[in-house]
Amino acid sequence: MQIVDILFGRPLASDEERAERIGPAKGISIFGLDALSSAAYGPEAALTLLIPLGMAGVHYVMPITAAILALLAILYFSYRQTIAAYPNGGGSYTVASENLGAVPGLLAGAALMVDYILEVAVGISAGVGALVSALPKLQPHTLSLCLAILAILTLMNLRGARAAGAAFMAPTYLFIVCMVGVIGWGVVKVILSGGHPHAVIAPPQLGHATEVLSLWLLLKAFSSGCTAMTGVEAVSNGVGAFKEPHQKSAQLTLTVIIILLAIMLLGIAFLAPIYHIAATDPSGPGYQSVLSQLLAAVSGRGVFYYVSIASILLVLALSANTGFADFPRLCHNIARDRYLPFAFTLRGRRLVYSGGVYALTFFAALLLIVFQGITDRLIPLFAIGAFLAFTLSQAGMVQHWRRTRGKGWQFSLALNGVGAVATGITVCVVLVTKFTSGAWITAILIPSIILMMLAIQHHYRWVSRQVAATDTLDTSKLIPPIVVLPIPEWNRVTAKALRFALSLSTEVYCIHVKNEEDDESLEAQWKSSVGDPLQKAGLPEPKFIQIESPTRRVIGPILDQIEQLERDHPERQLMVLLPELVESRWYYYLLHNQRGAALKTLLYLRGTPHIMVASMPWYLEPHPNNPNSSQNN
Amino acid sequence: MQIVDILFGRPLASDEERAERIGPAKGISIFGLDALSSAAYGPEAALTLLIPLGMAGVHYVMPITAAILALLAILYFSYRQTIAAYPNGGGSYTVASENLGAVPGLLAGAALMVDYILEVAVGISAGVGALVSALPKLQPHTLSLCLAILAILTLMNLRGARAAGAAFMAPTYLFIVCMVGVIGWGVVKVILSGGHPHAVIAPPQLGHATEVLSLWLLLKAFSSGCTAMTGVEAVSNGVGAFKEPHQKSAQLTLTVIIILLAIMLLGIAFLAPIYHIAATDPSGPGYQSVLSQLLAAVSGRGVFYYVSIASILLVLALSANTGFADFPRLCHNIARDRYLPFAFTLRGRRLVYSGGVYALTFFAALLLIVFQGITDRLIPLFAIGAFLAFTLSQAGMVQHWRRTRGKGWQFSLALNGVGAVATGITVCVVLVTKFTSGAWITAILIPSIILMMLAIQHHYRWVSRQVAATDTLDTSKLIPPIVVLPIPEWNRVTAKALRFALSLSTEVYCIHVKNEEDDESLEAQWKSSVGDPLQKAGLPEPKFIQIESPTRRVIGPILDQIEQLERDHPERQLMVLLPELVESRWYYYLLHNQRGAALKTLLYLRGTPHIMVASMPWYLEPHPNNPNSSQNN
Repeated sequence: MQIVDILFGRPLASDEERAERIGPAKGISIFGLDALSSAAYGPEAALTLLIPLGMAGVHYVMPITAAILALLAILYFSYRQTIAAYPNGGGSYTVASENLGAVPGLLAGAALMVDYILEVAVGISAGVGALVSALPKLQPHTLSLCLAILAILTLMNLRGARAAGAAFMAPTYLFIVCMVGVIGWGVVKVILSGGHPHAVIAPPQLGHATEVLSLWLLLKAFSSGCTAMTGVEAVSNGVGAFKEPHQKSAQLTLTVIIILLAIMLLGIAFLAPIYHIAATDPSGPGYQSVLSQLLAAVSGRGVFYYVSIASILLVLALSANTGFADFPRLCHNIARDRYLPFAFTLRGRRLVYSGGVYALTFFAALLLIVFQGITDRLIPLFAIGAFLAFTLSQAGMVQHWRRTRGKGWQFSLALNGVGAVATGITVCVVLVTKFTSGAWITAILIPSIILMMLAIQHHYRWVSRQVAATDTLDTSKLIPPIVVLPIPEWNRVTAKALRFALSLSTEVYCIHVKNEEDDESLEAQWKSSVGDPLQKAGLPEPKFIQIESPTRRVIGPILDQIEQLERDHPERQLMVLLPELVESRWYYYLLHNQRGAALKTLLYLRGTPHIMVASMPWYLEPHPNNPNSSQNN
Repeated sequence: MQIVDILFGRPLASDEERAERIGPAKGISIFGLDALSSAAYGPEAALTLLIPLGMAGVHYVMPITAAILALLAILYFSYRQTIAAYPNGGGSYTVASENLGAVPGLLAGAALMVDYILEVAVGISAGVGALVSALPKLQPHTLSLCLAILAILTLMNLRGARAAGAAFMAPTYLFIVCMVGVIGWGVVKVILSGGHPHAVIAPPQLGHATEVLSLWLLLKAFSSGCTAMTGVEAVSNGVGAFKEPHQKSAQLTLTVIIILLAIMLLGIAFLAPIYHIAATDPSGPGYQSVLSQLLAAVSGRGVFYYVSIASILLVLALSANTGFADFPRLCHNIARDRYLPFAFTLRGRRLVYSGGVYALTFFAALLLIVFQGITDRLIPLFAIGAFLAFTLSQAGMVQHWRRTRGKGWQFSLALNGVGAVATGITVCVVLVTKFTSGAWITAILIPSIILMMLAIQHHYRWVSRQVAATDTLDTSKLIPPIVVLPIPEWNRVTAKALRFALSLSTEVYCIHVKNEEDDESLEAQWKSSVGDPLQKAGLPEPKFIQIESPTRRVIGPILDQIEQLERDHPERQLMVLLPELVESRWYYYLLHNQRGAALKTLLYLRGTPHIMVASMPWYLEPHPNNPNSSQNN
């Protein structure tokens, strides 16, 4: 098991959980990576939609950013409240289902699940996309690179929260330093130059305006810019992963993340018009990202530029990790309410909900393969889920304050109410503006997931109703079963199985299907080898049933015989004993027929509850040089 | 099961075999298709190698054909003798292993196996190749077409020998009529015109000679032409499939096949120089096959031409069927001697050795996929296997006559001796002339197969030595086993399993692994629900073992506990009873853990022969509307 230990780390005991908990420093890199990295694509997404307005469009980036920041502020204060109210982790699923009911909860849960999966796929494909534009000869390997990064992320996350946080701290903080650095540097230059700084490397000139300003255009730009907010939910969902006191650590983490994100968004929006930076057509030649232009304009193309670009690439790729941190917790919460398979509630050797990690990896890989690892095709599916979850969470909190009516509840209620309305409007805007370009997929997916989850709970309830605890054990009629033993020939395996059968019950039926080649001899041998010694010992003889099989079928006649026995003894339990050759190498199994497994499957398919199937192993020796050391007794 | 009946036909009883046997009319199409269709590529293959000699080369086709016909005559007379001597099917494998020993037999067997697989792949790819040159837009689908034909052939052959023969009769006889017809018509024209007939459509002019005549060139042409003989073995291998009297039917079939093949080869060799027909470069533009040129020269491009071409295409594709007729029989013979897995000896519902059919399909598909369905790449691997088998078969017959010394044995011995020498020389010629262009693959493959077959027999012998029949049953110490029952919680499934365990033995150990959530309650419930009622009934109580699992592992601690029990009771059998939820739909199994299966696998991997595993089914009701009708009792 050493290789497993190297890959995944040693198994952790449940009481080691406290040590696995994280502080704000790691919390920022685990839960904040997605929110922070979205500064690298949010403003760009908004500016791209303003391209048709020409250079004049760049001036609208500030009002749009202001609207986004206002929404972000509302979200910040409402989520602070949520964290305080739900110290064990108050994701939208928990808040919505506790306060609004099961179906709104599932709606929030499904929306978040879809969003986390998309987050992983988009993060990885954006990172690989950036890498590929830097090194175009990697282009044909886009999908393979995406899947390789996904595999690495999966492995890191299976090692546990603390290990993952440690690995991601360096790139996260490098990114923060670079971004805050370039913005600060840029602002200083603006002040020193009296508002008209000289760009070290001037950004490319933008074409003339091809469209006039419209509200629709601004709404589309706004809803694209909203992708910058998708990671905000993560902290509140993961409160339980923080060091004690959970809430304080989580709130501090959230505060730092939101402030950093706000600084970045505001800084980019402030500097872009001054340095005449606009988005360039991502599908055209000479494409350059907004951040690359900004870095070049402020600092030139020196060491700082390349370190910053590298940190952006890294952080984009690793932002996928936020999905890994939260998706398994979310699935665990939903599975605890039995809306998802039981496996999602189990923690693996490193205290991670491994089932969720595997599921996330599977679905993200599926998305990457279907969309060939291309970010542009994935983006329109994105953000709806997040804002739907925001809305339901806020609405749930409104209900929460109405119920609890703690100190100052009116203010809290008002704050979450504003949040619910604002995010609700955003959902509508995003859904309408992006519907035809891909949001419809999300709109179909989320209800399907809800239906699936309801069906799962229905089934679990049904199963547990059926197996529900009986009061006490029925101690009447504890009679040994009738044992049925199919016999292909008389050999040591048969002898061992027969001994076992006779030790269980006095009623043993041996069934032999005659094969094509003549084997009259078995009946005579049976008498001398089995019947006579048992008679001599005064023990009851097993019944020997021989069946002709004109169509050479073996399993069918045995099945029929077993069912006949069941009909003849409706009150009795039957146990079918199947000897199984256990080989030392898997490929040796190709040399034997699999009739035992087939018989068991068919018996169970026929649904006869009085029939048990027992398997007796016969271990074949691995080394054919030592024929006398058999251990099968 | 109706769909199975439609696809494969109703199951046949073993005693229906006689009715499934075939006469010469069907025998020609089943066992002769390959030999006859090779007239369509054998002469062409020889002529292609003569291209460098220019038009002068065409005159060498007659001496080469004469050599081939001489060899064919030797083969015919020796195989007539083989059929007479081995009325139950005397393939090279049987003859060589009975007379020369196991390893020569396996050499013949392996050679034939490789050749049959190649025959199937080459036949299909040649047919599809011809079709694709007629309809070039099918070109991109070459491989898919090959695999589709393979699937159809597989299905037909699984339906049984008679059904397959019937389906192939029409194209076979159409092909024979067309070929004999065009040759007869051509010969009549030659006679009427006094040796200088006028070609209706003149064949294309051949370029000038680029090489001078050499023995090496003639040898290469001869060894390519020998592909025309690859199907001759088939009849002698399949004697058992013929109507009584086997030998007479089989000999008649062989005679007709050889005569038809000789007529075709001789006719082509005779007419080609007179009509100035030479091979054209198959990879160059304006390629036309030799048969197409001959048909056009004799009859023009009328209905007869197109019907003939269609019959050639069909027969080439269907010639693959000879492999299907013989390969399963060959595998059956080898498997009966335990050199191949037991499964090859079993006959399926239609009395065909289905295992061989599946194996042939698998390997032919593999070859087609690896070589992308292109005939040219497969041809050089071909023919070695067949001639190696011929040689071993003849050599075996020589030994046979020396042993039996029946009437006129000296003559028979001499005949087979000449055959052995002639075919032996041919093997060397083919191997040397084709070695670098692909024959080396066959030269590696055949010894590898022999090694595999020896290993298989070694393993089977080893297994049967281990399980070999004991004299009589040991009737001492028939004590019920200790039953071990893992218990996750107290419910109706547990209750049923416990009742079953108590009915088997008075010593029952119940193992419970405490899970993360607090479940102190089980111990108390156990006492009231199990302990008290058993005490009241005066029955022995099961031992209740509770295990803590700090790392949340469940299977590991149970395994350890079972091994502990085994160590404490080294003389006893243990039976681990695992309740299994049986769901009505397969996908419901995703909702349950598979700990039972994992536990069984791990127990068997540890190799503890005293431990049996029994599974108790608990049938979940399929319709959740009727919760009180459970049948699990």
